[in-house]
Amino acid sequence: MDKDPLVIFTPSGKRGHVAPGTTVLQAARQLGVDLDSVCGGRGICSKCQVQPSFGEHAKHGIHAGEDALSEVNAVEERYDRVRGLKPGRRLGCQACIQGDIVLDVPPESQVHKQVVRKAATTRVIEMDPATRAVYVEVDEADMHAPTGDWERTKAALKAQWDIEAGTLPLNMLTALQAALITGKYKVTLALNEAREGAVSVVGVWPGYVEPALYGLAVDLGSTTIAAHLTDLKTGAVLASGGVMNPQIRFGEDLMSRVSYAMMNPGGAAEMTTSVRSALDDLAGTLAEEAGIARDQIFEMVVVMNPVMHHLLLGLDPIPLGQAPFALATNSALDLPARDLGLTLAPEAQLYILPLIAGHVGADAAAVALSEAPQKQDALTLIVDVGTNAEIILGNKTRVLACSSPTGPAFEGAQISSGQRAAAGAIERIEIDPATKDPRFRVIGSDLWSDDPAFDTEVTGICGSGIIEAVAEMRMAGVLDAQGLIGSAEATGTPRCRPTGRTHEYLIHDGSAKGGPVITVTQGDIRAIQLAKSALYAGARLLMDEFGTDRVERVVLAGAFGAHISPKHAMVLGMIPDCPLDHVTSAGNAAGTGAQIALLNRAARREIEELVHHITKVETAIEPKFQEHFVNANAIPHATDPFTGLRALVPLPDLNFNAGDGDGGGRRRRRRG
Amino acid sequence: MDKDPLVIFTPSGKRGHVAPGTTVLQAARQLGVDLDSVCGGRGICSKCQVQPSFGEHAKHGIHAGEDALSEVNAVEERYDRVRGLKPGRRLGCQACIQGDIVLDVPPESQVHKQVVRKAATTRVIEMDPATRAVYVEVDEADMHAPTGDWERTKAALKAQWDIEAGTLPLNMLTALQAALITGKYKVTLALNEAREGAVSVVGVWPGYVEPALYGLAVDLGSTTIAAHLTDLKTGAVLASGGVMNPQIRFGEDLMSRVSYAMMNPGGAAEMTTSVRSALDDLAGTLAEEAGIARDQIFEMVVVMNPVMHHLLLGLDPIPLGQAPFALATNSALDLPARDLGLTLAPEAQLYILPLIAGHVGADAAAVALSEAPQKQDALTLIVDVGTNAEIILGNKTRVLACSSPTGPAFEGAQISSGQRAAAGAIERIEIDPATKDPRFRVIGSDLWSDDPAFDTEVTGICGSGIIEAVAEMRMAGVLDAQGLIGSAEATGTPRCRPTGRTHEYLIHDGSAKGGPVITVTQGDIRAIQLAKSALYAGARLLMDEFGTDRVERVVLAGAFGAHISPKHAMVLGMIPDCPLDHVTSAGNAAGTGAQIALLNRAARREIEELVHHITKVETAIEPKFQEHFVNANAIPHATDPFTGLRALVPLPDLNFNAGDGDGGGRRRRRRG
Repeated sequence: MDKDPLVIFTPSGKRGHVAPGTTVLQAARQLGVDLDSVCGGRGICSKCQVQPSFGEHAKHGIHAGEDALSEVNAVEERYDRVRGLKPGRRLGCQACIQGDIVLDVPPESQVHKQVVRKAATTRVIEMDPATRAVYVEVDEADMHAPTGDWERTKAALKAQWDIEAGTLPLNMLTALQAALITGKYKVTLALNEAREGAVSVVGVWPGYVEPALYGLAVDLGSTTIAAHLTDLKTGAVLASGGVMNPQIRFGEDLMSRVSYAMMNPGGAAEMTTSVRSALDDLAGTLAEEAGIARDQIFEMVVVMNPVMHHLLLGLDPIPLGQAPFALATNSALDLPARDLGLTLAPEAQLYILPLIAGHVGADAAAVALSEAPQKQDALTLIVDVGTNAEIILGNKTRVLACSSPTGPAFEGAQISSGQRAAAGAIERIEIDPATKDPRFRVIGSDLWSDDPAFDTEVTGICGSGIIEAVAEMRMAGVLDAQGLIGSAEATGTPRCRPTGRTHEYLIHDGSAKGGPVITVTQGDIRAIQLAKSALYAGARLLMDEFGTDRVERVVLAGAFGAHISPKHAMVLGMIPDCPLDHVTSAGNAAGTGAQIALLNRAARREIEELVHHITKVETAIEPKFQEHFVNANAIPHATDPFTGLRALVPLPDLNFNAGDGDGGGRRRRRRG
Repeated sequence: MDKDPLVIFTPSGKRGHVAPGTTVLQAARQLGVDLDSVCGGRGICSKCQVQPSFGEHAKHGIHAGEDALSEVNAVEERYDRVRGLKPGRRLGCQACIQGDIVLDVPPESQVHKQVVRKAATTRVIEMDPATRAVYVEVDEADMHAPTGDWERTKAALKAQWDIEAGTLPLNMLTALQAALITGKYKVTLALNEAREGAVSVVGVWPGYVEPALYGLAVDLGSTTIAAHLTDLKTGAVLASGGVMNPQIRFGEDLMSRVSYAMMNPGGAAEMTTSVRSALDDLAGTLAEEAGIARDQIFEMVVVMNPVMHHLLLGLDPIPLGQAPFALATNSALDLPARDLGLTLAPEAQLYILPLIAGHVGADAAAVALSEAPQKQDALTLIVDVGTNAEIILGNKTRVLACSSPTGPAFEGAQISSGQRAAAGAIERIEIDPATKDPRFRVIGSDLWSDDPAFDTEVTGICGSGIIEAVAEMRMAGVLDAQGLIGSAEATGTPRCRPTGRTHEYLIHDGSAKGGPVITVTQGDIRAIQLAKSALYAGARLLMDEFGTDRVERVVLAGAFGAHISPKHAMVLGMIPDCPLDHVTSAGNAAGTGAQIALLNRAARREIEELVHHITKVETAIEPKFQEHFVNANAIPHATDPFTGLRALVPLPDLNFNAGDGDGGGRRRRRRG
């Protein structure tokens, strides 16, 4: 029988016998228990606190006597006096195991804490960042055994932490040399181990400190750059924010930016400079907002589509503008942030998620990381709606991806009254099927427009607003399945007004107060039809490739996806039919994926592996895409049995154009 | 019996059977024969030429029929027509082995060519540089299997060259992307493999090219920066040159530069900037001289003492000024040259040899690499004389090293008529023992001063001149063993003139023509005595540590060592006694060591290993150093039996000071 004490750690349940006199910290390391330590067991950092549980433990079959741990020693007494210890807590590096004992590791003493992100879906991220701080006590220089400061520091890291450090950047060597003098051969180092076994020093402080280490998770979109400044130790988000992508002045959508690069020598470089500078400014703004110094940012993760990827990295985007859509690189990249001119910590590291294909980017990879279709039983369709839509379809058996050029209509561009999602934009709309009158809500106000107190200035319609408007028009009977707006006579409402050869539907007339007249025109309907057909066709193409004609779950991702009402999306025919309660919004899934990659190294390896197993489908060259595109023109699309939708939404059977394709306009002309 | 053809390669003698139809290049690879190829066997580069030898080979026991190789094919014919093949030569990648054959690999077809350096001692360097060019044909982009340009290039390197490339710097990715387009997916890459297995791309060209790849071997001395611009493919030196180290304005010797750093905040940074800029300028000058572009320089190797090392790298030199002489790092360093602000090829790599100790630098390591004491049977003392002397003692059993602070006297500084080795400086001197009259030669003229045609302006005495002068004065009987200059009466020559309380010896009076009066003063003798005692004491200390009182070989290294006459050095007592024909000059051994490291990677590993096995002896703290120093004051030193020297040089037994230590001066005063 083993006479060595039995130690049981909770909540992990890990247990084992250790030699009497073993410290709790040593025992945790021997048993593979996740117990933190920054000072390496010197009673300085207090990260290794545990809560012993004495007495009878029937569940574990042991009795823990009061002498199961060594008495509180001088180090612990001093620590308690100076910094305070919670009652009953012990320092794991000081308390020695003398008998059977149960020890609880409180959450704050775990290295791999779990962080909960509250998004539309609650998400748990296990903390395992690439950057961490360690404290080492380095041998003093000895002229009889002359080795350098760095070589002695490396030896200390090996002896005290079992860490094999690699090479040291020159600026860190300078810092180390100074810190060893100031800190009397005691230093705290920030180590980055982005890839297993490749440990580099990225920060140096004299003596024992608990350096603040921050990271930035960036979703670099064609239109918006969004970032979260995050504490790499706790996972807490300190500040979030976004700025417009300044490349917009070179072109609204990706292809117009590629064209700009083609037409203007130096144009690509100009766009590279502008986006890098915006990113750098955003980092500064968030740092200021969080009250930290920007040189405390040690890591950055960026997700983006292939064109943004090439433009950020200073690569030529022109090959992405035409088949075969050749990427310069598709692998995940580890780069010094200064290579992009970013002024973070001098040795801040940048991680860029892998690209999936020439049209399917790291943003889609981030969505896949966040939504994990490869782990789903249900066949899941993930749609990240933006100027370009990323579409992923899959389950445990297989994952497919494509992108579809929806154009900017879903973002309110190319829409007569369209505008970006900003104060004054109509974002929600309802049309009464009886009166055909609308009511709406605008960004910046919680009131509906039919509330007597509503007095917000209305300036236009944003992307989610136009989708709701079109779907509501269809449900209210002012729009037919072909996408034609009916006349006042046909619909019974004067809001359907002639304009040129077609009709438009009046939502809001602000002209009395000098405001805009907001209508949905036949042209707007056509733009939305094109965009939604492209989106739907992409999804159908993946379904064909998968060999299915229905999906079990639909996830709407993207900042914009978060605002789309699933019902309206389905009425519009943006997505294949699916029981409505199986359609969810994932919020900014790409941004969430970036955060996961920032805080957990294993997730980086996971997505790098997954992208190799994702089947890429190229919409641009697939003949069936055209076929689906044409078939998807109707509202809703013409090919689905509408099982879920029909049960939910009664759609009027209308045809405002008896036989020809030019709609009300031509009819009106005939009459005229 | 094996029926496969037997192929024998000369001059290596490697032989083996290969399957019929194997190309010569494949056979060479199979048998481990050193046969070059840049194009990977596509008949483009012609680097794999061999000279088949048909007929009877009695020595090898084979008969090589005319059909032992396949007939000259279209590729070879075209190559011969367009670029010309020497008679009988075949392209190894085209000619197939069909029968027993002897194939000679001419020197120009060998990868590891041997390069002979003509120095004082002839030296052979085997070519194995870290940087080389390879040509690859990359798969075209395929949108159905989307991988990036870099990933397809990596796959091609693996398939065509069995090279596992690592990561790619961002600027090289940009270059690769462009080159693949221009070169229609055929590119030539310059690869750097400074450490085995770590292959990075450092240059990219579209299509097949034979890029010029150059390297710079730099000996960065306290006083002079010397560099050789070398072809990394052939080992040929294209240009050599030197400039003064601009740090001289901050202090003549190393310790005064450390003091400057201590006294002036920002002083170290100032010195760093000045030396980096001088190095960069020197690179530019040499490139211009050689008619190449500076961005064709892909590698640089620098050897230097610890203080120069720290100042070049931007490290704090102050810790090197006092015990324990803590180095920031002592390991060999691989760095991007741009980290030092050097404008060579954008990805040019810098290799810095390891330091041996706080006072014994990479220059000493380079000397050890060049002179290889660890491979000698004879116990060898290597002395690199400069402002600081590096001293190495060893043989196959053990190697010891120290440095000794000789001060700048050996470089002509702190000498009344001293000057640097430049035109007008006396560099050789002879004094007639009968007449006590000198004759001399100055730099810039081949004539001795007693030649009627001699009319060169004489400006001073350089380091080697003052050593010869003192030794000659001793041999001619105007200087006694204690270092006292005799009076005119005592020596019998009016050239010994009183000055203050001592005497000086007149070498040259140019005052009639407005030129200088050049004398050797008692103060000069004292300065030389101090310097030579320090040098000698260092050597003795190593001998003590080794447990010997004599050495078998002495090697004088350093640019200055090249000019010292061994006989005079021994008369002066700079070095321990040793048969005179065992004293040799190694020229600039540190510079040679830098060149070896530039051209041969194995040599880098060799010196990195050797420095760990060199016993460092710290002169500054060793009490016996003082003892040896005092004992070495006499000319020659007092402790050796003078075996070799006595046989060679009759030294007069003189004592110009009967009993007191103040020499002629005091005697003169008594008389006066």
